[in-house]
Amino acid sequence: MTPTITAFERSPDGGKGLARDMRVRWALEEVGQPYDVRLLSFKAMKEPAHLALHPFGQIPTYEEGDLALFESGAIVFHIAERHAGLLPDDANGRARAITWMFAALSTMEPPIIDLAIARLMERDEAWYEQRLPLVEERARIRLGELSARLGDAEWLDGPFSAGDLMMVSVLLRLKASGLLDQYPNLSGPAYRRAFEAQLAVFTAASRT
Amino acid sequence: MTPTITAFERSPDGGKGLARDMRVRWALEEVGQPYDVRLLSFKAMKEPAHLALHPFGQIPTYEEGDLALFESGAIVFHIAERHAGLLPDDANGRARAITWMFAALSTMEPPIIDLAIARLMERDEAWYEQRLPLVEERARIRLGELSARLGDAEWLDGPFSAGDLMMVSVLLRLKASGLLDQYPNLSGPAYRRAFEAQLAVFTAASRT
Repeated sequence: MTPTITAFERSPDGGKGLARDMRVRWALEEVGQPYDVRLLSFKAMKEPAHLALHPFGQIPTYEEGDLALFESGAIVFHIAERHAGLLPDDANGRARAITWMFAALSTMEPPIIDLAIARLMERDEAWYEQRLPLVEERARIRLGELSARLGDAEWLDGPFSAGDLMMVSVLLRLKASGLLDQYPNLSGPAYRRAFEAQLAVFTAASRT
Repeated sequence: MTPTITAFERSPDGGKGLARDMRVRWALEEVGQPYDVRLLSFKAMKEPAHLALHPFGQIPTYEEGDLALFESGAIVFHIAERHAGLLPDDANGRARAITWMFAALSTMEPPIIDLAIARLMERDEAWYEQRLPLVEERARIRLGELSARLGDAEWLDGPFSAGDLMMVSVLLRLKASGLLDQYPNLSGPAYRRAFEAQLAVFTAASRT
């Protein structure tokens, strides 16, 4: 059964491929699973029909027969569990790849989103200039720790996994800020190929 | 094999049971799995031996034979996958319970942590009083949406699951703020029993 996902009719990022449906599209492309997309206006996202699917009125959602899911992490995990290619076969490697999915969403994404919130929503506040370095520093601490762990490796733990997919999609949000350039391995060959892979999915999606 | 988890030697919350090892302890207690605890000083958390286990120098970690995990979400999921009682048996119910785990960590926890960061780390900043209502409002939006979805139900989706466990442990951080009192169902009988269950685990842990 072909699953249906939801995405923004008009993405708030103006088409840079940063919305959270991209992770799900990328995962579906990686495993070769065709899918349908239903585009939603901001208004429709807060209406009862969509809130029944997604209690927080966001995208993406995932519908497949009588199963309806929300949360990009849960959807990518669902796809990774049901198709080969995104989780290692051995139990310990699989548990570690899942750990990196949670690390991307729980440890790396919050300070990165805080930076985006400060830049987008608090730019006109009196405290903006003074507070920004504090928020950047919180993101930098995590980037430094992640960079130290990645070291010379291509991926976070063995072969490319759903953990790397989530991490790349989270880091992608920093591309425009220049913050990532200070950590060459986080924008090195493997991660650059992954950024490009996500961009290719985005470009293809934009054409249809 | 008895797993070993790590926890703060002195919790920054001064012993209110808000540290992230509590979720893991609660999950282990729920499934009846005995465990050992290794307590760490703040200094030890940033030393190479611990960074090898946890790249972000945090607690908790989970060691079991040659498997080492970090991230409370990943650890609770690992426990829930290997023991009965925290995930439904049917595939769709299981996927939805996992969705709530991700929702607790990715959607609910970030604004709640932002509120804690503002209160703990920006209290002496010039902008503190002016910015606080903004941060509270972001948490309130999510609490309102969560409360609307929970409605009259005891748990988020059918019987108690790892999704509820994570959600309760995330909401617990708001208990002292009074913010939760505005959503009676989020502090209603079932959730109150769950708060108490986590507190009981904490109290028992504090005695040993």
